[in-house]
Amino acid sequence: MSKTNRGRFFEDYQLGEVLHHAVPRTVGEGERALYHALYPARHALYSADSFAQSSGLKASPLDDLIAFHIVFGKTVPDVSLNAVANLGYAQGRWLLPVWPGDTLRAESEVIGLKQNSNGKTGVVWVRTTGLNQHNEKVLEYVRWVMVRKGNLDAAAPETTVPDLPDVLTVEQLRVPEGLDFTHYDFAHAGEPHRWGDYEVGEKIDHVDGVTVEEAEHMIATRLWQNTAKVHFDTSARPDGSRLIYGGHVISMARALSFNGLANAQMIAGLNGGAHANPCLSGDTIRAWTEVLDKAETAAPGVGAIRLRLVATKGGAPFELRDEAGKYRPEVLLDLDYWALMPR
Amino acid sequence: MSKTNRGRFFEDYQLGEVLHHAVPRTVGEGERALYHALYPARHALYSADSFAQSSGLKASPLDDLIAFHIVFGKTVPDVSLNAVANLGYAQGRWLLPVWPGDTLRAESEVIGLKQNSNGKTGVVWVRTTGLNQHNEKVLEYVRWVMVRKGNLDAAAPETTVPDLPDVLTVEQLRVPEGLDFTHYDFAHAGEPHRWGDYEVGEKIDHVDGVTVEEAEHMIATRLWQNTAKVHFDTSARPDGSRLIYGGHVISMARALSFNGLANAQMIAGLNGGAHANPCLSGDTIRAWTEVLDKAETAAPGVGAIRLRLVATKGGAPFELRDEAGKYRPEVLLDLDYWALMPR
Amino acid sequence: MSKTNRGRFFEDYQLGEVLHHAVPRTVGEGERALYHALYPARHALYSADSFAQSSGLKASPLDDLIAFHIVFGKTVPDVSLNAVANLGYAQGRWLLPVWPGDTLRAESEVIGLKQNSNGKTGVVWVRTTGLNQHNEKVLEYVRWVMVRKGNLDAAAPETTVPDLPDVLTVEQLRVPEGLDFTHYDFAHAGEPHRWGDYEVGEKIDHVDGVTVEEAEHMIATRLWQNTAKVHFDTSARPDGSRLIYGGHVISMARALSFNGLANAQMIAGLNGGAHANPCLSGDTIRAWTEVLDKAETAAPGVGAIRLRLVATKGGAPFELRDEAGKYRPEVLLDLDYWALMPR
Repeated sequence: MSKTNRGRFFEDYQLGEVLHHAVPRTVGEGERALYHALYPARHALYSADSFAQSSGLKASPLDDLIAFHIVFGKTVPDVSLNAVANLGYAQGRWLLPVWPGDTLRAESEVIGLKQNSNGKTGVVWVRTTGLNQHNEKVLEYVRWVMVRKGNLDAAAPETTVPDLPDVLTVEQLRVPEGLDFTHYDFAHAGEPHRWGDYEVGEKIDHVDGVTVEEAEHMIATRLWQNTAKVHFDTSARPDGSRLIYGGHVISMARALSFNGLANAQMIAGLNGGAHANPCLSGDTIRAWTEVLDKAETAAPGVGAIRLRLVATKGGAPFELRDEAGKYRPEVLLDLDYWALMPR
Repeated sequence: MSKTNRGRFFEDYQLGEVLHHAVPRTVGEGERALYHALYPARHALYSADSFAQSSGLKASPLDDLIAFHIVFGKTVPDVSLNAVANLGYAQGRWLLPVWPGDTLRAESEVIGLKQNSNGKTGVVWVRTTGLNQHNEKVLEYVRWVMVRKGNLDAAAPETTVPDLPDVLTVEQLRVPEGLDFTHYDFAHAGEPHRWGDYEVGEKIDHVDGVTVEEAEHMIATRLWQNTAKVHFDTSARPDGSRLIYGGHVISMARALSFNGLANAQMIAGLNGGAHANPCLSGDTIRAWTEVLDKAETAAPGVGAIRLRLVATKGGAPFELRDEAGKYRPEVLLDLDYWALMPR
Repeated sequence: MSKTNRGRFFEDYQLGEVLHHAVPRTVGEGERALYHALYPARHALYSADSFAQSSGLKASPLDDLIAFHIVFGKTVPDVSLNAVANLGYAQGRWLLPVWPGDTLRAESEVIGLKQNSNGKTGVVWVRTTGLNQHNEKVLEYVRWVMVRKGNLDAAAPETTVPDLPDVLTVEQLRVPEGLDFTHYDFAHAGEPHRWGDYEVGEKIDHVDGVTVEEAEHMIATRLWQNTAKVHFDTSARPDGSRLIYGGHVISMARALSFNGLANAQMIAGLNGGAHANPCLSGDTIRAWTEVLDKAETAAPGVGAIRLRLVATKGGAPFELRDEAGKYRPEVLLDLDYWALMPR
């Protein structure tokens, strides 16, 4: 038993330590096809080489969230195997497209530690970086999780809480080299609405819903080599149900947002996100979006739009919090991201 | 909400109008593998490059029904989002093989309109064409659907019902360039029966059955970017069940027909088809075939065979209609197609 | 009905006969992605081209069990369609890696026959060989099954029971050409334990579990073009449940064994195996391993390790047989194989 990974506990993390996550992964056409089979993904840039090429890219890259899930999955054995809760994301940036044939690996630096007052758990902040086979960074984000202590007698570390801005500035976003939306084909993309047609404060109900099944979310979560027991083993939780990987909800909501945001083609930044309530098999996932901000970019024809993407499992659209300010019980996800659109 | 697609209603269609369907799609090895995972597909020409090459093709093309499903899926947002019923198919022709790496798009011309006497619905006929990245036609077919009126006060269009022959002649079929079955390997193909061994009127029980599950049909239907709510959202139908995409039944029945028709390698024409009854998760799909006609083609060693493929969810094989001439309740599909076989 | 395959019965097999199994199959990136989606597979050599290249291979081969399942699936229509039980495996050897783009086919020679004393069934031994498009052997193994007689009056064949050693010697194992573990990256592989760290007799509980669902095992089994009715058709067994393909349990257990055996990278030999009890949807598969033997190989840095891999659906780890020597009811699989590890 000593040869198996029991996961790290709170006292096992050192500030400044770099975790080199295991098992690099080559991704390709198979992962792309599975992404389209698991989510109702239709953004044209990730669906057709021709569309990507007419937007100045060499081919259709893999969906931005494939990169995120692969990198996230690698961190699980080192970061969240003993996690009690996934508390938040910040400062997420997509730095380079991932192409079929690329091999991804991941590293995380411990940038914050804070033991909780109960002495049984603590919060760990990590800045995770995804790299390709050329050692180029393709993705980075900060994530913080609440982790159990393995040894309650272990001394508390010095508290260090990183200073994390709530929002990325548009200058921090990386627009893929060559991206050019000046000849954008709105008919092929599926909707006529350009960057200029969206107003800050506007809300969009994405209308469609998907009732999720056990086999699907397990197939998805395994595809990302995410090994957290609660997603697969019905004996891992007291209620005998599998907890659906929060990233599955992110991808489902993002794909559903095509209906109303078909031209929000690329995800460039992740400002923050909360998994407000657990998602279980049988839930019907719906989504709505609020436009939070808009900015121009230096790339030809490319605008940036900041969006709040909310996934729910029922209730009316546009309802987020109750009177006490808590997320309503039907809210699954509250995600704040920057997307790139044709201006 | 104004930014989302509510779908077209009957009064939104104009005779002669061409609909350019959104979101081109690059298809490849991933879609091929998923097709083999979702259906018990074993026709050798689509399973092995070596077999396709010994039949005169450059490589194994993607299954003919992958092309059909991808093209069909693209039409859903513009043609059948408000459809009450999918009434029929005619004049379907596979014009070119689809190769891994091809990018498909679709267009539909409105070729018929007829408002129903109830004033609430109408029938729309479209001729849909699938094209590849070279703007070559790979597939065309006529489909007609019953669509709701959005505005009951909208004037009825002039009635135009297209003249659609019940059956394609063998001269209308397009045999892929280079196809040559003179050195056909029956052992590798799986059965010894050649074109000459089948008689018009012969019926074949394909014996095998597959009990379908929710996750499978959703994965399949999403893979074709088909967005019809009833396949995914259990709240979209009054009975709380998901309706299985009719094309899923077509692919399942065609794959099951390998057992007895392993050498009916390629689908060349779709004469007609009816989805006789809904298919739901838990149904066990079986299939039988009746040989309707046979014809020679100009290609070396290649014969054409016209087949009625019937899918059922129970009952005895070869039972199709009741005494009143209606489809029996266990019949799911009645499909009339031309296939290419070694002579 | 005469055109469909009813399968072979015991009296249909002749000693020395070679069965050329139908439907060659080209395998590629799609099958690789699906393997990662269906099993929690993380062995680095099959996950990343970079890791395989730093181990002396040209790229990441397809998982050894993909080769096994594809070859096994081809034999089903000719060997086990009327099988009552899959009795055992022996002398399995992986002879060449399978690369994306390879086309596999299979042949089996009948090497043993023995009618049972009840006169209703008999045992058939076949030596199955998988070949690639260059007619090179990639895999071979012996399997024996109990098959029903179709005609109870058919004469019993002369009894021939092949002499099958229980274990392959290390000299019989084929190490892939070029394989070199001298620069092995243990951090990327996921665990620090090398060949020298394992002791004969050591037992490892792999800790993790996966509760299996119907859609998943059907998707997997179909992917290998395995057509045995009992895996797909709920009416094929008296209890209305689908029997999960034994190979699905093998792959699940092997993937779970990553946790504790991350460096047992390649499967080189299959000494034997028993499917001790049926696996059904809803079972939670767990695994444990016992180290049976160790040996050096001539390849640089490469050791061989003989492992007993046991899959269970409950119970305590390391429990295999009851007091009467029978497999305990929760044991699903008892597999004896040779793997290659960094020394």
